[in-house]
Amino acid sequence: MAKINIDEKLTKFSGHWSPRVVAEMNDYQFKLVKIQGEFVWHNHVDTDEVFIVVKGSMGIEMKHENITLNEGEMYVVPKGVMHKPYAIEECHVMLVEPQGVVSTGEEEGELTAENDVWV
Amino acid sequence: MAKINIDEKLTKFSGHWSPRVVAEMNDYQFKLVKIQGEFVWHNHVDTDEVFIVVKGSMGIEMKHENITLNEGEMYVVPKGVMHKPYAIEECHVMLVEPQGVVSTGEEEGELTAENDVWV
Repeated sequence: MAKINIDEKLTKFSGHWSPRVVAEMNDYQFKLVKIQGEFVWHNHVDTDEVFIVVKGSMGIEMKHENITLNEGEMYVVPKGVMHKPYAIEECHVMLVEPQGVVSTGEEEGELTAENDVWV
Repeated sequence: MAKINIDEKLTKFSGHWSPRVVAEMNDYQFKLVKIQGEFVWHNHVDTDEVFIVVKGSMGIEMKHENITLNEGEMYVVPKGVMHKPYAIEECHVMLVEPQGVVSTGEEEGELTAENDVWV
């Protein structure tokens, strides 16, 4: 496997809420995604989900908490917790989660993305 | 859980080759480590291991390849592959791997670190 340059991968796509799988570790995937605007409320009943902000700022709205993440900050949304990611301006994020996770959890709809696997 | 600021966590410790667990996702751990000099040759027979360079540059020597990773670059060492991480100047790295992984794999010795869990 080749090394992955995160910034270089981010130059290769545009569009929002459509994660690209850039690396795999065992049965987990590292994805890059550009986000802007509001996503849908959803949860992942079987897994935690990691957000690492690579560039910009984003928020994660949850029932009892609203987290703001800036560049160089990360957060683990625990499994089962309803959350709604959002970003006022475009934000670049690394996601880490098991293979097969659907971006919108149980709430499939027009924002549900196919994971584009680049590895 | 609180959000994690990676740079702020890195200000909280010194010393080399001694990873701090800063986040957990399912049965996986995100660790920060400062490295300088040469580590020992080792492998992890049961798991891949992810290196993400947060600051500086490091190398990973393997049998048939020698990878240099700069800030913002990542690499997945496949399970079972013998490798020796090194850094000429101090380098800050995020590691991602399952709970319970020993830093030196099967080659326990004076560089074997206890994982200091901060979550």
